[in-house]
Amino acid sequence: MEYKELDVNSVISYLKSVDEVMNYFGSDDLKADEIGDGNLNYVYLVSSTTDSKKALIVKQAVPYLRCVGEEFALGRQRMTYEIRALSKFKSIAPNLVPELYHVSEDMSIVVMQYLGKHIILRGGLTDAKKYPNLSEHISTYLAQTLFKTSSLYLDSTSKRKLIDEFNSNTELCKLTEDFVFTFAYMENETNDADNVKDNQLAKELFADMEFKERVLDLKYKFMTAPDALIHGDLHTGSIMLNEEETYVIDPEFAFVGPFGFDIGALVANLANNYVHHTIVTKDEDFKEYLLETIKEILELFESKFLQLWEVQKESALLIDGYIDDKTAHRYRKKFLKSIIQESVGFAGCKMARRVFGVAGVAEIRGIEDKKMRRDAEALVLKIAREFVMKYDKIEAIDEILEIIKSAR
Amino acid sequence: MEYKELDVNSVISYLKSVDEVMNYFGSDDLKADEIGDGNLNYVYLVSSTTDSKKALIVKQAVPYLRCVGEEFALGRQRMTYEIRALSKFKSIAPNLVPELYHVSEDMSIVVMQYLGKHIILRGGLTDAKKYPNLSEHISTYLAQTLFKTSSLYLDSTSKRKLIDEFNSNTELCKLTEDFVFTFAYMENETNDADNVKDNQLAKELFADMEFKERVLDLKYKFMTAPDALIHGDLHTGSIMLNEEETYVIDPEFAFVGPFGFDIGALVANLANNYVHHTIVTKDEDFKEYLLETIKEILELFESKFLQLWEVQKESALLIDGYIDDKTAHRYRKKFLKSIIQESVGFAGCKMARRVFGVAGVAEIRGIEDKKMRRDAEALVLKIAREFVMKYDKIEAIDEILEIIKSAR
Repeated sequence: MEYKELDVNSVISYLKSVDEVMNYFGSDDLKADEIGDGNLNYVYLVSSTTDSKKALIVKQAVPYLRCVGEEFALGRQRMTYEIRALSKFKSIAPNLVPELYHVSEDMSIVVMQYLGKHIILRGGLTDAKKYPNLSEHISTYLAQTLFKTSSLYLDSTSKRKLIDEFNSNTELCKLTEDFVFTFAYMENETNDADNVKDNQLAKELFADMEFKERVLDLKYKFMTAPDALIHGDLHTGSIMLNEEETYVIDPEFAFVGPFGFDIGALVANLANNYVHHTIVTKDEDFKEYLLETIKEILELFESKFLQLWEVQKESALLIDGYIDDKTAHRYRKKFLKSIIQESVGFAGCKMARRVFGVAGVAEIRGIEDKKMRRDAEALVLKIAREFVMKYDKIEAIDEILEIIKSAR
Repeated sequence: MEYKELDVNSVISYLKSVDEVMNYFGSDDLKADEIGDGNLNYVYLVSSTTDSKKALIVKQAVPYLRCVGEEFALGRQRMTYEIRALSKFKSIAPNLVPELYHVSEDMSIVVMQYLGKHIILRGGLTDAKKYPNLSEHISTYLAQTLFKTSSLYLDSTSKRKLIDEFNSNTELCKLTEDFVFTFAYMENETNDADNVKDNQLAKELFADMEFKERVLDLKYKFMTAPDALIHGDLHTGSIMLNEEETYVIDPEFAFVGPFGFDIGALVANLANNYVHHTIVTKDEDFKEYLLETIKEILELFESKFLQLWEVQKESALLIDGYIDDKTAHRYRKKFLKSIIQESVGFAGCKMARRVFGVAGVAEIRGIEDKKMRRDAEALVLKIAREFVMKYDKIEAIDEILEIIKSAR
């Protein structure tokens, strides 16, 4: 099918040609509302006019940046990678990825479950809402998706095919290279100019050559470590949940990259939220919950990943009989430690870039009181710097929490 | 053009349809001789019947292993990667790769310069022949090809395209994963059974869990480090030379892999040759030449790579203005040290696998006296083990020479 940009009317007629969608809605009349407030794509909520509980989400990429307009070209191919990643992650972690009703790479479109009873994790955390299943669910998601797309599980041929499917997600990888690892630490037109101007903190960060040299190491690792299929943008805005269910959404940045990047993104965003509560709400109980959540996610991830690996007899990396069990055990432990370390390094970059870079996070950039905001930014940078400077010496998860707690 | 397997007759009529080849030979009558003694492909020497100095080499892959026969299937796509690598390396290091007259991925064929006045480096070294330009030429080859296909030179898009071109060279990458990093260190039917049987050295190697655990690290690095386009099989049998000229041939194992793999292959093969002379000829002067050659290649590689990098203003990794010159200098030095270290680790694997693995090297496996051969093997394994156990602690090139010299 040839690509065609849909609107609130044509989306309905398009859906009528899709069996899976029609099976879902039956003979109901449909209506569509544009609900997207994202930067990139058009998002429609399509629902039954007779039973509003029956609803699906339609997401279509257009060949430009939606929030700017047609003059800012951005390949709609990003949806190709989102579709591939959603399908792959759904097959690996079925309960943690929304139901897919229809995808078309030609049309750059995906039709999926409407998460009407779920909210964005970032908002929930900022409102000091605790989620009893978050650590359990997200650690499963991380362990399953990272392990089962890695050379510790796949054979060489399948691994290379996987790399092939995502290797050309060049535009979005480049966004990360630029915005997470480069521009936010130097004078650059894309930065938050109002904030950078006459700001001593920015001056210090931009001149911090030790920090920036280590960021360069992490950037190189990001660009040249095809460990596993990663989500690529797993901040707390990419998770929708309620007390029972957790869903990971929006994997358009997916590619075969370093093990630690998604884990680091999560740690970074939880730590940013911790800073928010330190400065704004001073809610010590919730801060403790955030630290506990980081710890649980990392520990559960480690044990689940190890569990999957222990029962895996053959893979691209290891074949049965190559080493004895004791050595294999030691090797796996060491491997996991290095994943956690690398995650902390990436977490540092993911935090630091939110301060002066183009894309802030609500918990920090959204703080209205200027003095408080500056204090929060200073705290974010302090933690981020410690993460980046010390990540490869981290021996235990508690050291990560210590860095977050002791920053002031 | 559809693929067709050529023979000594049809190769001539095929060449008559290729303008570049006809321009070379003019109106001369041609004859073809099959000269290949390789395992994989058919190789023809096509020459003018009136002027035997006018000659070209034709190499065609067939969809099976030539040395075994049609029952051993092996995709002729390997020639696709050889063609792509030859073309790429030729464009980067024009004087160090044979002239290409014609290539066709469809026909799995390449027509290139006949190196009639050059011999295989391995043979030359075994005959204790010194080559005055070897270090200079090979270090240029390594520095140019590795730097100019890396993220230190290319932009992100070009780098990803390069990965794309070689990512599916799966079969040959798998051969390296299996034969360089796995089978040669364990009981395996592909090993040199006569040698493994009742051999204490084999028993010790196969039970050496510390060594094998570190080989596993290097295997993982081999599989997941798309640093640069590497030759992938740069032993001394892949270099043809004479006193003036040096050519690198046979890059069918090429893919975007770790910086240190080609360098390590060279070091390994020079060290194996050193062991040969230690045990067989006891030629101290030539042994000194070999050590000197290793040192020169590594030092010249380092300085040439650094030189290229220093003048490179922008790349996928680094943009102008991100860090100051002093930091950039320090970063580059550190980066180069880590390339050398990794090379030593790979060299260890490349040496060790020659002892019991399926593919031996003439200098060692070809030693006729059984006692001498065993002594040579013990020495090879001693050096290899030191390389693998210590590579990431190597601080200076002299330490590498010391490991080779002090093994006895």
